[in-house]
Amino acid sequence: SKLIYVGSYLLERLAQLGVTSMFGVPGDFNLGFLDLVEDHPSMEWIGNCNELNASYAADGYARVNERSIGVLTTTFGVGELSAVNGIAGAFSEHVPILHIVGVPNTMQLKNKPMLHHTLGDGRFDAYTKAAEQFTVSQATLMNKTTAAYEIDRVLNDCITTRRPVYLTLPTDICYEKIPSDRLKVHLTSIPPENDEDVETFVLDEIVKLVETAGQDVVILVDACAGRHHVKAELKDLLTKTHFPVYAAPMGKSVVSESYDRYGGIYVGSISHPDIKEKVESAKLVISVGSLRSDFNTGNFTYSVPARKTIELHSDHIMVLHAKFPDIGMKRLLPKLTARLQPYKEEAKLLEVPLYKIVVPQEDNNLISHAWFWPRVGQFFRPKDVIVAETGTSSFGILDVPLPDDAVFLSQVLWGSIGWTVGSTLGAALAARDLGLGRTILFIGDGSIQLTVQELSSMVRVGVKPIIFVLNNSGYTIERYLHGKERKYNDISNWKWTSLLNVLGGEGASESYTVHTKDDLSKLLEDPTFAKAEKIQLVEVMMDKFDAPRGLKMQTELSGKTNKYVTVESTV
Amino acid sequence: SKLIYVGSYLLERLAQLGVTSMFGVPGDFNLGFLDLVEDHPSMEWIGNCNELNASYAADGYARVNERSIGVLTTTFGVGELSAVNGIAGAFSEHVPILHIVGVPNTMQLKNKPMLHHTLGDGRFDAYTKAAEQFTVSQATLMNKTTAAYEIDRVLNDCITTRRPVYLTLPTDICYEKIPSDRLKVHLTSIPPENDEDVETFVLDEIVKLVETAGQDVVILVDACAGRHHVKAELKDLLTKTHFPVYAAPMGKSVVSESYDRYGGIYVGSISHPDIKEKVESAKLVISVGSLRSDFNTGNFTYSVPARKTIELHSDHIMVLHAKFPDIGMKRLLPKLTARLQPYKEEAKLLEVPLYKIVVPQEDNNLISHAWFWPRVGQFFRPKDVIVAETGTSSFGILDVPLPDDAVFLSQVLWGSIGWTVGSTLGAALAARDLGLGRTILFIGDGSIQLTVQELSSMVRVGVKPIIFVLNNSGYTIERYLHGKERKYNDISNWKWTSLLNVLGGEGASESYTVHTKDDLSKLLEDPTFAKAEKIQLVEVMMDKFDAPRGLKMQTELSGKTNKYVTVESTV
Ligand SMILES: Cc1ncc(C[n+]2csc(CCOP(=O)(O)OP(=O)(O)O)c2C)c(N)n1
Ligand SMILES: Cc1ncc(C[n+]2csc(CCOP(=O)(O)OP(=O)(O)O)c2C)c(N)n1
Ligand SMILES: [Mg+2]
Ligand SMILES: [Mg+2]
Repeated sequence: SKLIYVGSYLLERLAQLGVTSMFGVPGDFNLGFLDLVEDHPSMEWIGNCNELNASYAADGYARVNERSIGVLTTTFGVGELSAVNGIAGAFSEHVPILHIVGVPNTMQLKNKPMLHHTLGDGRFDAYTKAAEQFTVSQATLMNKTTAAYEIDRVLNDCITTRRPVYLTLPTDICYEKIPSDRLKVHLTSIPPENDEDVETFVLDEIVKLVETAGQDVVILVDACAGRHHVKAELKDLLTKTHFPVYAAPMGKSVVSESYDRYGGIYVGSISHPDIKEKVESAKLVISVGSLRSDFNTGNFTYSVPARKTIELHSDHIMVLHAKFPDIGMKRLLPKLTARLQPYKEEAKLLEVPLYKIVVPQEDNNLISHAWFWPRVGQFFRPKDVIVAETGTSSFGILDVPLPDDAVFLSQVLWGSIGWTVGSTLGAALAARDLGLGRTILFIGDGSIQLTVQELSSMVRVGVKPIIFVLNNSGYTIERYLHGKERKYNDISNWKWTSLLNVLGGEGASESYTVHTKDDLSKLLEDPTFAKAEKIQLVEVMMDKFDAPRGLKMQTELSGKTNKYVTVESTV
Repeated sequence: SKLIYVGSYLLERLAQLGVTSMFGVPGDFNLGFLDLVEDHPSMEWIGNCNELNASYAADGYARVNERSIGVLTTTFGVGELSAVNGIAGAFSEHVPILHIVGVPNTMQLKNKPMLHHTLGDGRFDAYTKAAEQFTVSQATLMNKTTAAYEIDRVLNDCITTRRPVYLTLPTDICYEKIPSDRLKVHLTSIPPENDEDVETFVLDEIVKLVETAGQDVVILVDACAGRHHVKAELKDLLTKTHFPVYAAPMGKSVVSESYDRYGGIYVGSISHPDIKEKVESAKLVISVGSLRSDFNTGNFTYSVPARKTIELHSDHIMVLHAKFPDIGMKRLLPKLTARLQPYKEEAKLLEVPLYKIVVPQEDNNLISHAWFWPRVGQFFRPKDVIVAETGTSSFGILDVPLPDDAVFLSQVLWGSIGWTVGSTLGAALAARDLGLGRTILFIGDGSIQLTVQELSSMVRVGVKPIIFVLNNSGYTIERYLHGKERKYNDISNWKWTSLLNVLGGEGASESYTVHTKDDLSKLLEDPTFAKAEKIQLVEVMMDKFDAPRGLKMQTELSGKTNKYVTVESTV
């Protein structure tokens, strides 16, 4: 069989998985591998400004190119450790990333000299030990005999668990030659069949509960429905059963938000009253891919007790209080749909609130959150990729119905600010490959400062996102939590509209400041702006103390505004 | 005794240690603590743009304010993990940093709900486990009874080992009240007395070896001499013995470079031939605080075998091949000086090469490395703080003698690019407090892109460094290692002279581009520029393939330019 470099074997596997762009920063221990990447016919090397941003980009790429994975390449120590937060975030939010680290050669790994990028005390395993905390699987390629197997093992773990994995590539191993036969058998993320007996038992149980509920059933969609690829199965379930469906914040856009049986976002006590009532009064809730984090549940204020909930997960099913390990939803869902179809007529009678939002009339021209979010909602188009940063943006966007086939990215559980900048780069590249629409980012003036340099990579690779920077003089979300007037919540004001020019975008970008509702409306109605044929940045002037409904409710409800840490008593 | 908050106890300890500025980024789990910081009379909160930059700033601060420590405050998960690389770098390079992490309250830490910033799987200890790899000591304050003890324990480890430590501060514990009496006893970094018998034995051995060597002795100064505070003891040794002294790159500026018995930088095979000859032909080398990393030794090309070397360390002494554990140099040095003083007359006869550099005559006006470094050398003044980024800068600066009491910062072992930007902020703040001179940074166009936003913090806090950005169209140091013409070594060209304006510096900053030797000389001779009363950025246009002597030698010597990874065969 044909011999190929270990590095090339790895690249072929990635190509098979549909990876088209790889992210990272060069460093002397990965340069040889980067030669292979640069020379690969179908792979594009996206050199990022720094490694954290690169990990965010790989994350955003994986979320949009959801059949594939994100790939991050860094160098030993300094590079890989810069990306730890990005990888941990991908772990937390179930995003598959392969982190390839170029490391010294195997002789050095054994002899442990005091190389640059080491801790100076001979501990060469410290970085891997750290990585073990934040990845589901790790491999160090120490010889060519097992290299292909090890690569396949971590990749397999990555695509099946939808979580990050870690691979160290010593400089010498990268150029060892190995047989390529294994490549003929592709890796697959499709889970094996469930145990038939248990599965049938579970299905029977569910059908019984649906009957008992008099078909008063609601479907609740969450993060892992998207991450574990059951969108199609879910759509089938919905259209064939007509059950009303709602989404948690992390499940937003998994089900089309224009679907007539879709009622909007359920997030415990901070849901719209209508939605709250409908979800909580249902006799039975079938929850798909749930992830019950504080901000995804309105600070743990779900009033949907286990005794009326069926939870479908990628690797287990909960029927009320009973757990069925190793039964996965991917295989179960089609069978469930077939069994539930007969209940469709009754389900049709269940009313679903109309999920829409009206642009309010306000008696001044300032851009308030109450006005801003519905207004930009009118600007969205089918297939747009919409990214919202933690802060007022991530709360504001929740009330806005997104168009058909829109893709929504936010980091509700991990909530690392700055993430969206890298993530928008990755998302825009994936969107380009998949023929999706515009990529539109909403980000606060505080958050963008963490990772701002990655705008330069967007310019360089030629993606054209529209970036709304909410200029509200600092960390507004934090002012709501604590320290309203504190200096530590202030930030430096930048010349936002010159940023793209300085970062390499002169001629290739446009920037605007909007002070009023009229300014913004005019811009949104400008067809050239809407076409997004250049990268564009819009500085949106907002009041320091204004916030969207959701954020205000969160703090009002808990009655703790300005007390120390809102979530303190939620357990 | 007076009761104070745990958070206040911590701040008082830091104030006692001479900490005046604290770095970090707010987050909901540290906001309460930040109230205490903001209200503290002698502590300044420096809000950074992101956590990695903040850790770099704490590092730079600690290196300049060398009797004190750096302090970094971040939030649970997202914040702390963003700083891992910065902390690991401080570990590697022996820089004392206290990393304070604001974490959920103790009830939540016990019950482990799915809070934002968690991994979603209930592992609340993952971040601490990662921190264990990169800090010498960790504490989680779980109750008020042991809080003061635990704070003192980690601080004590920090100041004695001169390495980073990790402290998690739960939101509730921060505001628990505890007695303040312990504060009366200050913490001290001065090591205990050495065992007298062993110490005397070691001294006898050393004196015997000096005699045997016919007083042909050379002192070699390295990183840990500075880090472990033996500058004064060392100076005393030098002036009383008159032994010639040389420095490793990491020991640069520990001994005044204008001292007439100082011969310059010894870095194995890439040393100047004169220096190499003198050091390697000496009969005995007394090495102080050595740290034998690849780049600190010319890729392990020291020709100073153990059989003619005495190594003084903070926690042990090596006499030729014999190790004496637990004998530290801080206590030993004064006694050694007393014993060696009698050999002064003979030592005076040993010749020391003059460490100076001449600005070469070149027949064109382009700014070459060969010309640039000696030229800027003429610009330096006593007490300037000089920071050099990994890349052509860190090699170029080595040949330039620094003036008296200049402070030199570089990351020779860890070598994480972007570090100098944060580090310059911290260094400039410490320099301001200590009444030092200007802070002058040399950084490549590639490196500055990693951490550029921190220029904005410099503007905000009002420090006025001079920043030389070497614009050589990408990663030149890497081109010398591998991939000379590869695209992955290219970067995006920014409008460098508009950067400070965009990042909040309009009116408060000046920026310049110099294309020629004449341009640069004119600027350096401009008294307004030299006074540095505003923050200033100088874009220095250089050839893509030009490099300083040291870097060229490193790659030529190893004869491996453009082979895969230069350091590959050095073990
Ligand atoms: C990496 C990281 N550091 C710190 C935080 C804490 N934090 C959460 S939101 C926020 C402020 C965001 O401010 P901005 O982006 O301006 O949003 P807005 O003003 O619209 O709320 C901060 C500092 C975090 N979540 N992640
Ligand atoms: C955090 C980090 N990422 C990557 C590297 C690998 N690296 C070492 S030097 C360098 C290029 C530096 O380029 P530049 O700052 O332009 O310096 P110059 O061109 O003057 O050599 C890179 C990418 C590193 N050392 N640290
Ligand atoms: Mg803001
Ligand atoms: Mg460069």
